[in-house]
Amino acid sequence: MDIQQTLDSLKNEMAQVRDERKNKLSMVVFSGDLDKLLASFIIATGAAAMGMEVVMFFTFWATPALRDKKKKGKGKDIFGKMFGFMLPRGAKKVTLSKMHMAGMGTAMLKHLMKKKNVASLDEMINLAKEMEVKIFICEMSMDLMGFKQEEMIDYPGREFVGVAKFLAEAGDSKIQLFI
Amino acid sequence: MDIQQTLDSLKNEMAQVRDERKNKLSMVVFSGDLDKLLASFIIATGAAAMGMEVVMFFTFWATPALRDKKKKGKGKDIFGKMFGFMLPRGAKKVTLSKMHMAGMGTAMLKHLMKKKNVASLDEMINLAKEMEVKIFICEMSMDLMGFKQEEMIDYPGREFVGVAKFLAEAGDSKIQLFI
Amino acid sequence: MDIQQTLDSLKNEMAQVRDERKNKLSMVVFSGDLDKLLASFIIATGAAAMGMEVVMFFTFWATPALRDKKKKGKGKDIFGKMFGFMLPRGAKKVTLSKMHMAGMGTAMLKHLMKKKNVASLDEMINLAKEMEVKIFICEMSMDLMGFKQEEMIDYPGREFVGVAKFLAEAGDSKIQLFI
Repeated sequence: MDIQQTLDSLKNEMAQVRDERKNKLSMVVFSGDLDKLLASFIIATGAAAMGMEVVMFFTFWATPALRDKKKKGKGKDIFGKMFGFMLPRGAKKVTLSKMHMAGMGTAMLKHLMKKKNVASLDEMINLAKEMEVKIFICEMSMDLMGFKQEEMIDYPGREFVGVAKFLAEAGDSKIQLFI
Repeated sequence: MDIQQTLDSLKNEMAQVRDERKNKLSMVVFSGDLDKLLASFIIATGAAAMGMEVVMFFTFWATPALRDKKKKGKGKDIFGKMFGFMLPRGAKKVTLSKMHMAGMGTAMLKHLMKKKNVASLDEMINLAKEMEVKIFICEMSMDLMGFKQEEMIDYPGREFVGVAKFLAEAGDSKIQLFI
Repeated sequence: MDIQQTLDSLKNEMAQVRDERKNKLSMVVFSGDLDKLLASFIIATGAAAMGMEVVMFFTFWATPALRDKKKKGKGKDIFGKMFGFMLPRGAKKVTLSKMHMAGMGTAMLKHLMKKKNVASLDEMINLAKEMEVKIFICEMSMDLMGFKQEEMIDYPGREFVGVAKFLAEAGDSKIQLFI
């Protein structure tokens, strides 16, 4: 009797422990540099290919990389318009953190990536979509930069969230990264 | 008899496993950029609000952000004086990693943060204090930059530590980040 | 009978749970800045000193820091030659992310590190070697930058791998960082 109870409580605890560390990867994508965005998508799609659940949380400078260049946000104030103008409009416009060299380095890397059959950032985002990588976008960053939801790329299940959502996801993930 | 022993050893192991992955967040704050410092405090206070234990380990460029502009370190050598002069004196002086634009971008972000009711870095540090976020400062960075303990902000429980302390804290945390 | 079976399956599960979170640290070293490279080796050797298994995964800008300045890669195309020329040739050539100031800041930090008995990057790499820190190098980065395996430093057990290898290592590590 007593033994049976102990066994049951151990089984419950074991289930909890397993549930607290899922086969899941959570990433904060903070950087808006092409190289770091590429790295985050290479890791994300690689993990998804290995059967992991993958969650990407876009914040600060990474947010503009998810803008759709063909869409426009309406009703922006002067700051929103300035940020909108100054920050890159989507994945094709982001640049390297090093050796950008007025566009030459970025162009060279893009050329090399094509030559070596490495997917471009645009293609990576599409691959992530197909592999059901989840994308969350930081509400506060959207608000600060004056971005509107309607100017962001379409992505199934895309959600605008706060830091609590990231922490909840990261909390039961076995891998977490800040990029 | 045998069963009871196995049960006891399983219970012990279970307690150990739980203890090795606490509801805790450990962060290395390496960057001295305003944007990354803000991100680290948003994550830290968000986690504390969710009931997590939070530990921030300030190192390298993040160290000067914890200087108190009203305090001075004594007995510095020439290098200490140079670093002291060149590095920002406290949370109000740190700047953006991107779009600093000779102060314009940083000023604009600060203006926007006020307008959108986002707390300033100074306010974030105070919030962290109230929420009992723990702050550790890297001894080696203090030593290299010639900072003196008496010129750092007062913060309850603040400790000057080495990398082993961070690793011990991170080792039983369920979330770890390098920012 | 039934109890014995439950006990056995619990013991198996417990062994699995322990195996999924080893006393191991996995790091992506992405940055090629001297300060971040130093931080990653300080963390790596610190963790090894505490008895942890340590795995460093060098990718993107961190890759050139592992070049051996005395070695040359053969048969490079024009891009490989350009990257080879533009990127630092080994640990002695990498520079600070901040305050590089045309070499002055980097020189000053190196001088201070010597004065304060902090190991140089070169010495750190040797220390890591002695402490059996494992080094993996990203194949895709090697390919993109046109680096040849024969121009990299000798390091026991060094392997050229893809992202899947990093994810497998990180997945059963209790600490993971992206630097």
